[in-house]
Amino acid sequence: MIRFENDYTEGAHERILKRLIETNEEQTPGYGMDEHCEKARGFIRKECEAPEADVHFLVGGTQTNTTIIASILRPYQGAIAAESGHIATHETGAIEATGHKVLTLPSEDGKITADQVKELVDAHWRDASPEHSVQPGLVYISNPTENGTTYTKAELEALNKVCEACQLPLIIDGARLGYGLASPDNDITLADYARLCDVFYIGGTKIGAMFGEAVVIINESLKKDFRYLIKQRGGLLAKGRLLGIQFETLFEDGLYYEVSKHAVDMALILRQAFVENGFALRYDSTTNQQFPILPEYVIAELSNNYSFSHWEKVDARHSAVRFCTSWATKKEHVEMFVNDLHRVCIRS
Amino acid sequence: MIRFENDYTEGAHERILKRLIETNEEQTPGYGMDEHCEKARGFIRKECEAPEADVHFLVGGTQTNTTIIASILRPYQGAIAAESGHIATHETGAIEATGHKVLTLPSEDGKITADQVKELVDAHWRDASPEHSVQPGLVYISNPTENGTTYTKAELEALNKVCEACQLPLIIDGARLGYGLASPDNDITLADYARLCDVFYIGGTKIGAMFGEAVVIINESLKKDFRYLIKQRGGLLAKGRLLGIQFETLFEDGLYYEVSKHAVDMALILRQAFVENGFALRYDSTTNQQFPILPEYVIAELSNNYSFSHWEKVDARHSAVRFCTSWATKKEHVEMFVNDLHRVCIRS
Amino acid sequence: MIRFENDYTEGAHERILKRLIETNEEQTPGYGMDEHCEKARGFIRKECEAPEADVHFLVGGTQTNTTIIASILRPYQGAIAAESGHIATHETGAIEATGHKVLTLPSEDGKITADQVKELVDAHWRDASPEHSVQPGLVYISNPTENGTTYTKAELEALNKVCEACQLPLIIDGARLGYGLASPDNDITLADYARLCDVFYIGGTKIGAMFGEAVVIINESLKKDFRYLIKQRGGLLAKGRLLGIQFETLFEDGLYYEVSKHAVDMALILRQAFVENGFALRYDSTTNQQFPILPEYVIAELSNNYSFSHWEKVDARHSAVRFCTSWATKKEHVEMFVNDLHRVCIRS
Amino acid sequence: MIRFENDYTEGAHERILKRLIETNEEQTPGYGMDEHCEKARGFIRKECEAPEADVHFLVGGTQTNTTIIASILRPYQGAIAAESGHIATHETGAIEATGHKVLTLPSEDGKITADQVKELVDAHWRDASPEHSVQPGLVYISNPTENGTTYTKAELEALNKVCEACQLPLIIDGARLGYGLASPDNDITLADYARLCDVFYIGGTKIGAMFGEAVVIINESLKKDFRYLIKQRGGLLAKGRLLGIQFETLFEDGLYYEVSKHAVDMALILRQAFVENGFALRYDSTTNQQFPILPEYVIAELSNNYSFSHWEKVDARHSAVRFCTSWATKKEHVEMFVNDLHRVCIRS
Repeated sequence: MIRFENDYTEGAHERILKRLIETNEEQTPGYGMDEHCEKARGFIRKECEAPEADVHFLVGGTQTNTTIIASILRPYQGAIAAESGHIATHETGAIEATGHKVLTLPSEDGKITADQVKELVDAHWRDASPEHSVQPGLVYISNPTENGTTYTKAELEALNKVCEACQLPLIIDGARLGYGLASPDNDITLADYARLCDVFYIGGTKIGAMFGEAVVIINESLKKDFRYLIKQRGGLLAKGRLLGIQFETLFEDGLYYEVSKHAVDMALILRQAFVENGFALRYDSTTNQQFPILPEYVIAELSNNYSFSHWEKVDARHSAVRFCTSWATKKEHVEMFVNDLHRVCIRS
Repeated sequence: MIRFENDYTEGAHERILKRLIETNEEQTPGYGMDEHCEKARGFIRKECEAPEADVHFLVGGTQTNTTIIASILRPYQGAIAAESGHIATHETGAIEATGHKVLTLPSEDGKITADQVKELVDAHWRDASPEHSVQPGLVYISNPTENGTTYTKAELEALNKVCEACQLPLIIDGARLGYGLASPDNDITLADYARLCDVFYIGGTKIGAMFGEAVVIINESLKKDFRYLIKQRGGLLAKGRLLGIQFETLFEDGLYYEVSKHAVDMALILRQAFVENGFALRYDSTTNQQFPILPEYVIAELSNNYSFSHWEKVDARHSAVRFCTSWATKKEHVEMFVNDLHRVCIRS
Repeated sequence: MIRFENDYTEGAHERILKRLIETNEEQTPGYGMDEHCEKARGFIRKECEAPEADVHFLVGGTQTNTTIIASILRPYQGAIAAESGHIATHETGAIEATGHKVLTLPSEDGKITADQVKELVDAHWRDASPEHSVQPGLVYISNPTENGTTYTKAELEALNKVCEACQLPLIIDGARLGYGLASPDNDITLADYARLCDVFYIGGTKIGAMFGEAVVIINESLKKDFRYLIKQRGGLLAKGRLLGIQFETLFEDGLYYEVSKHAVDMALILRQAFVENGFALRYDSTTNQQFPILPEYVIAELSNNYSFSHWEKVDARHSAVRFCTSWATKKEHVEMFVNDLHRVCIRS
Repeated sequence: MIRFENDYTEGAHERILKRLIETNEEQTPGYGMDEHCEKARGFIRKECEAPEADVHFLVGGTQTNTTIIASILRPYQGAIAAESGHIATHETGAIEATGHKVLTLPSEDGKITADQVKELVDAHWRDASPEHSVQPGLVYISNPTENGTTYTKAELEALNKVCEACQLPLIIDGARLGYGLASPDNDITLADYARLCDVFYIGGTKIGAMFGEAVVIINESLKKDFRYLIKQRGGLLAKGRLLGIQFETLFEDGLYYEVSKHAVDMALILRQAFVENGFALRYDSTTNQQFPILPEYVIAELSNNYSFSHWEKVDARHSAVRFCTSWATKKEHVEMFVNDLHRVCIRS
């Protein structure tokens, strides 16, 4: 069984493993106060061209989203997000568990627009009794989105502008940020992210690390006491060095970009194969997730040797499915798959 | 600088590192549904003589305590704990953040007694209007305690009995469980824990693993939907295999016991050295934490080469301090320290 | 200015005032343990033909919804409701503030169907990883709905059936329950409510009382410790007798039905006037709320002497507006309004 | 049975009842936006010499404490209070239910000192890892305290000073504020309260009103969006006018002070009677609550005709009990009690 079901099926990039072994006997202070974390922070600040940014390391995505959002909102405020946003759908109500509503916007492709945000905010304040509704308190997007699509720099600038006008922090879930950076369509740099949003994070779990998400806080007013929140939400890893070592390795000489590019290259091979075999794509993704719409019999055939996830029923005979590649995807597996796909399609 | 400041200053036991490397390229399903987790569960169930137990793996202690407690209590219930308990003091109010009060009992040495629990519960129900106070909903202890002390089997049986009588689940924070098992005073087995409490966990972070806590749910009525809670609280590690692999290694052939014993052996050498030099011990610990009361000038001298933590001011010229050993403590470091301690004491 | 803007513009029915005066100097125990509460409970149990029901009195609707829902759900569960449901829109995220998501269903008229509930629940359990989403934990409806529409007994029975099949408690927000009972289309009795749902409440605030909502808990398993929750959520009125006295008066000899009927009679006069003047109704309501779609100039004219609420823009020249009647609506005001409406319509 | 068990055994002062009747048919906007509320706000601002203060009306004390505290704290902060404080003991964990720990200080008489606050705050910031503990976020006191004792102006000024130095808002629970103002020992005015704290409230429930607490927000930075919090916590009364009318009546011409004085006068008669009969007082209260230590046989005798509350067992043969007077206490009842007390004491 070759797994394309998600982008965390393997352990970690070999250079990270190597570094973990080399540093294993070092004695360091706990909770992210060690030198590896400090060095990793430096590398990230540099990439972001944000020397004043606060950088914190957490273990996983749900934890990171919850901690960031809880650090920003007052109790009666909510987070604006696409209805398909991770915080709206796949975190078991973690945001609600911190007391906050997710205010959802309809979205066909996982993205939301500046106009949508503006209209939701305006509608709130137009209400004669706004205090009877949840007040919009921040805007959450992820890039790439749950559907593999990406924002352009122009779209991000428009969101930044509307957020400033509405006095709403803009936060970006970057669990797959590297795969966005590596997209052939991408025109956004880490420095742009730092310039255009208030808080974002750089995902490691899905991109080369064993685990780990690096939170970058740009907005000065959101920096205060963030470590209290990490600790309270259970995200302050005792051996914080493990996070520092991983992000140090990913960012000291471009490994993060390199492995991201590999994953996207592999995904584009898959994409081409689906298109060449005449299959439509549910979303127009040029990142590491691909969503072909396949006939059920093709799905059944492929499932014998490959794992991938069901996305949605399209009609009686077709479903959209999701294939993920990652830093760890082997080219020979992709080629084997492409061959098998051709074979299945020709045969039928 | 040689660090005795806590028991998580190094990475992980070499056998765990080795296993992580060997398995690194395996492709596994996420979120703890892989074969390594399944095997680790089997080993733990066997050690606990609890074939029906549910076993879940989480990353860290605060997260684990919060998740267990949130899974048990109704909104108006609280957790009974020693006033020095970890959930009462060192988790930034994580329990309160899930809506629950910690109902504290005074404790000199970190332990609470069955009688104390009974009296607190009785007092609640004696009240003419109990619904105006937080209802006791469970009993939380840790073994060893924050002070390195341990419960005897008789004490644990008494707590079990009173908890049953009061219909309160008994949960045990085992972040340092191995160091308790390895204490020369210990008369409790893992099977005893499984027999005498409702939920407990076996700490890995401080005992050989990079990170990880294995939750063992014994009480049938507390098993339902626990994974939802893990996910909601941000504790469901994407690459759950990392936890499975570590606990598999720790429990397949006794490594957990072996490294625990090493740490306690090292601690007892420290203990003896303090006693021989005429220093009192703040708590009578036979586990991996030692709390000597030292003159300030001794503390100052030792601090040049060793890190350890300030515990409390005892009088104008003395403080209690904490030394931790761990699975990773090197015997030569301990011997060096003992020599240095003698030297400092003789000189003065 | 004559107010049709909501159904709580006046104080309380004169018989309630009278009873408050008569009983004012009585000394009673606090928190609902007095004889008036006990008598009121008896009357309500009798009307509901539910001698075993628990009856509790709370002050207002948001508080009541929050308390009921918090008493039922486990932390990772959510409440299914219409997207226009009060808990989804007009309680400032009170449900989320207790940690729970509102799982919304689309609704044109404020009602949800048994089929919709079934499909949402089935979709949750069909998911390969249901623990990544909020688990449906109860079904919330209000009757009448926010749009003045009502469920038929058949629809309620269907909901009851699907809830039983899915093991979800069915709770009914009855803030305007009396106005539903008084609708000419109604075929549901209080006894039916008690038979078909797990918890419901009988609104007093909008129906004759100064304030107060009577919660009726039918399901045995949901009765435990409800008073703790009322107290914790700030809903346990010190002078609980005030609630007892009001519900005693409303239910000892049918006053509740009588004043409800008056309000609906007044609303139906308004309805007829709108229809006769050629206006469409946004919702087909036969309860105390009417939602005509009026031209902006008619709205402007009427606004000089009458207050009512803007509901939604329908097109460039029309808006739906809401008129409420209540137990306190004076017939001469309604007639004056009808005349004014005719005049405005004729003139233009 | 004559009731001294609490200070909310009767309905409301007759002038309040009268006003409720007079205004009953007025039509007003909901939620505190009516003219009665506005007038009441004006009276209160004037008494407080705080023309810029925000004044909000809520129904009960627990709700008010919870709403104020939730409006101030960030998620990882706690409220400093006496261990006997109402929020620490008698609100079923309502503060914890909003996610916040109550940080308790020992107290013999219900009061806390500026020095205690300073020491707790200093200890937090002295900690090498403060983010592992709950951060002190505000100071809560009540005046009078749960024990009937009162703060002097000098003590309040000292608290104000330490709170400013520590940048902690000082909030005062004034559920019995009037009874403090009426104490013969009192040297604090409403204007002093407004000058010396950030938020306080003026209790109506126990002092003449049917129900109601008037929150006065002095600190500009704490005013924002308070109505959202009231609504979310279920405290926004639909017929807000009921609160406005009551506080208007209490404050338009000094009724609040007048009824408060009556209650304290009655309490001092009780106090004198206890002292004259040789009984010690558990707390030195000159407000409306008295805590005599009585022999069990005296308690038993008196219980035949009077209700009062058990406070605590003092020794095998004595208990402290609590007697409350209120605005509604009848002088003849007090005199009857004094006679009965003498009789019981003489007989034995």
